[in-house]
Amino acid sequence: MATIGEMGEFGLIERLTARLPQGPQVRLGPGDDAAVIAAPDGRVVATTDLLVEGRHFRRDWSGPRDIGRKAAAQNLADVAAMGARPTALLVGFAAPPGTDAAWADGLYAGLADECAAAGASVAGGDVVAAPQITLAVTALGDLAGGAPLTRAGARPGDVVAVRGRLGFAAAGLELLTAGRDGPAELIAAHRRPEPPYAAGPQARELGATALLDVSDGLLQDLGHIAAASGVRIDVESAAVPVPAVLGPGGLRHALTGGEDHAFAGTFPASAALPPSWTRIGAVARGTGVRVDGRLPEAAGWDHFRS
Amino acid sequence: MATIGEMGEFGLIERLTARLPQGPQVRLGPGDDAAVIAAPDGRVVATTDLLVEGRHFRRDWSGPRDIGRKAAAQNLADVAAMGARPTALLVGFAAPPGTDAAWADGLYAGLADECAAAGASVAGGDVVAAPQITLAVTALGDLAGGAPLTRAGARPGDVVAVRGRLGFAAAGLELLTAGRDGPAELIAAHRRPEPPYAAGPQARELGATALLDVSDGLLQDLGHIAAASGVRIDVESAAVPVPAVLGPGGLRHALTGGEDHAFAGTFPASAALPPSWTRIGAVARGTGVRVDGRLPEAAGWDHFRS
Repeated sequence: MATIGEMGEFGLIERLTARLPQGPQVRLGPGDDAAVIAAPDGRVVATTDLLVEGRHFRRDWSGPRDIGRKAAAQNLADVAAMGARPTALLVGFAAPPGTDAAWADGLYAGLADECAAAGASVAGGDVVAAPQITLAVTALGDLAGGAPLTRAGARPGDVVAVRGRLGFAAAGLELLTAGRDGPAELIAAHRRPEPPYAAGPQARELGATALLDVSDGLLQDLGHIAAASGVRIDVESAAVPVPAVLGPGGLRHALTGGEDHAFAGTFPASAALPPSWTRIGAVARGTGVRVDGRLPEAAGWDHFRS
Repeated sequence: MATIGEMGEFGLIERLTARLPQGPQVRLGPGDDAAVIAAPDGRVVATTDLLVEGRHFRRDWSGPRDIGRKAAAQNLADVAAMGARPTALLVGFAAPPGTDAAWADGLYAGLADECAAAGASVAGGDVVAAPQITLAVTALGDLAGGAPLTRAGARPGDVVAVRGRLGFAAAGLELLTAGRDGPAELIAAHRRPEPPYAAGPQARELGATALLDVSDGLLQDLGHIAAASGVRIDVESAAVPVPAVLGPGGLRHALTGGEDHAFAGTFPASAALPPSWTRIGAVARGTGVRVDGRLPEAAGWDHFRS
């Protein structure tokens, strides 16, 4: 097997970038001091995350392609959660010189696959030697003339709705931790989230007043909207989608599990939400999040990750 | 001393971002799913680098403020090297939970200081726990209507010119490695480069045909222009600025030392270069880089870092 150390920095960059498809929004791709990306709106949405092996992913639990897809997805979802369309990804890749080059190939294939799913391209990045595999992913996006959907716009009287899977990734992680290998749908959801990227721009068109992607857990993330907007959010647990595959701990996972990158937003009560969105609660005066009228802790739902 | 682990992720983010000044180009700063940065040109210049402790910086050789300034500078210089004005920085910060919070404060103060020097703001980022301090820095910039200055536009007959210090950082690193603490100017240059950011947009106004910032060493970086442009670059060693402070190894450091982030570009022979730019050679048909007519290796100048 060839290692990335044998290729050297420039050889590895050439190998990894040669296969990256570049969409029309990439005006200048990898290979120069910086990339140039179209930003037709006149503003650019930008977010960055660090993922560290052992903490954010495990190579014995996930293959390189899934790790690449997941790393891309969590950043692309952050861009979509502003109501924007993702345009480009920049990827910093730190790894020990002895890392198998084929593993790096898989990682970048996954990054490119997820970009394609979101309409974006891997347009640049950096590779360095380090004792531990670390990914630094920056995603950019375009607002297409709309106002950014922040966490701060929820108003009393709004409805709360979600689009996308909740609790699947957490349930899959719990299974892997317990040494189990099924249900396959849950394991796969832990390895690779499937954020419904179109939900971001769609939420804006539907008149959303606040939006985010669920990365830390529904209750915790709704708490961010409540805090930023100065409102209370009331969740009806019976309205939260809990597919049977989630099993007996389904509601817990759906309320507290992160990493599925569903979208949760608030909308005027008059908004005509299509069936892809599920109404799960309402916005009221006050502070914090309630589940069926009680504080999540009192109801047995910890604010933090399950 | 307080550690960053004691503060938790959200407490640390709040502490670090509270002091970050936000310029008018930041339409939405830290605290939401993503930042929103003005991109009036309709395109955005973007670049990212990873810096790993032990490889890219040493805490026993540099304080946190200098490490922050240097990490910001190398990315802001990449943006300027496209002929763009830096607008914003996103910073991923990975560190052991036992890291002193005051060290993190210093790091972010340095990042903010360097942004201010370049006209940009730290507009977002991420903090995670990791065994080793790692910085992921993404810089964005605006082209203000101009064409990006790539490495690929040099033409036979052009002149080669540089603006900024050459060899200072490498000389400083050599001194530190040898256990010496002066000349102070060189040690300081290793700890904190001072890229002349205005040189990027200025080079474009002067009609530059290619531009980059010198990060790997003048000869190696000119080699990138030669390769991308399909030309030969002839350097006259007697024309390369070698201040006396560089000492007897001065020319070697100036030709092969990186990390000062001077700007090196090619210009039409008719360009009226102001005194801040020094003409050091010319572009000819052919390939590669020559120093006084000889290959750098033959002349004793290794292509790679001194």
